[in-house]
Amino acid sequence: MSEIKIVQNILEANETMAAQNRQLLDKHKILAVNIMSSPGAGKTSFILQTLARLKDKLKVAIIEGDVASTTDAEKVKNHSTAVVQINTKNMPESCSLIANMIDLALKDLPLEDIGLVLIENVGNLICPSEFALGEHKRLVISSLPEGDDKPIKYPMIFADADVIIINKMDLLPYVDFDIASFRRSVENLNPKVKFFQVSCKTGEGIDDWCSWLSKEVENNASHK
Amino acid sequence: MSEIKIVQNILEANETMAAQNRQLLDKHKILAVNIMSSPGAGKTSFILQTLARLKDKLKVAIIEGDVASTTDAEKVKNHSTAVVQINTKNMPESCSLIANMIDLALKDLPLEDIGLVLIENVGNLICPSEFALGEHKRLVISSLPEGDDKPIKYPMIFADADVIIINKMDLLPYVDFDIASFRRSVENLNPKVKFFQVSCKTGEGIDDWCSWLSKEVENNASHK
Repeated sequence: MSEIKIVQNILEANETMAAQNRQLLDKHKILAVNIMSSPGAGKTSFILQTLARLKDKLKVAIIEGDVASTTDAEKVKNHSTAVVQINTKNMPESCSLIANMIDLALKDLPLEDIGLVLIENVGNLICPSEFALGEHKRLVISSLPEGDDKPIKYPMIFADADVIIINKMDLLPYVDFDIASFRRSVENLNPKVKFFQVSCKTGEGIDDWCSWLSKEVENNASHK
Repeated sequence: MSEIKIVQNILEANETMAAQNRQLLDKHKILAVNIMSSPGAGKTSFILQTLARLKDKLKVAIIEGDVASTTDAEKVKNHSTAVVQINTKNMPESCSLIANMIDLALKDLPLEDIGLVLIENVGNLICPSEFALGEHKRLVISSLPEGDDKPIKYPMIFADADVIIINKMDLLPYVDFDIASFRRSVENLNPKVKFFQVSCKTGEGIDDWCSWLSKEVENNASHK
């Protein structure tokens, strides 16, 4: 069997499991968001800022994906309803969460009690774009210090996103990043994407994002 | 055949090809450096800074790895002896360069004329750590805005590095990054690693790195 064929089989098996995860989430009226970015773009700070605003209104569970360590799970555990840590270090697909891992994580979550699951994927702009998890929304965080050319160099993850978070807006005076050019590059790949410009350090823009997310959670609960 | 077995087979085939690449490089007394980092940590700027200092002393070739686009190859082509672009988008291991790709790239380079090959890997802290290319030195660039916890979260790539470049030192006043703690985390994994603190924006620290690299190229040429 050729290597390409094997890769196709892995991806097909993943799609099947992702569809099962989606059914389970829908049955419980839970909205799931897959949060992807480069290492260090600010996924955990973004989740913490989101939890700070939503925890009194919503029951939120977190699934933390990391190659190694429980650093991020430690940070979020006191701010959410439930946390599951997944370490991918010795798994065949260590560069991304895959649907099988989410299947296991969902078994450990109190599904009756929650309305939203935030899934922090492994820090990587390539592999996570290939593996659906069963999520309703795909979110990519791009931070200013990474440069505005990332959509051109890693097009797949931007093409499939529902939401793009432009993070570290507080660093705008100190780095070369053309926001209009970045947004144009993303829109060329993906005209319907929604943008939020935020700073997880100062809190700028987080309210807008949380209002939008709350409405999505509400719609998801009422239409199923 | 189980998925883990397949992954092992792919890695073994890669090791064999990497050893062949190494033999070819050694025959021509060429030093090869594999440059790895997260997306946007500054690999291309680092190569440009290095070329600016070394191009009158040394013949340098560049192998540019990217998922898509020729953006980086365009930037370096006027500053080096030769450039080969590799796009991994539709390849089974799209998240890293692999030894087979370097084998093909070396066939396109004027090996008689060059003393150094800088290989810019795909922006990723996970996959490139699994795939030897035949390089003599493994270099990881970590930039301050990514945070000082990356060695804890992505230990494999730091454990195997010969050189760590701490980049974007010009942003130190504006981000939370504890240099001593970062270096300690790396040294816990890898006591012999060599550090350089640089800014590819201001040029800080690049001379030290280039002196070290020039000596390595010289030693490589005289001992083979």
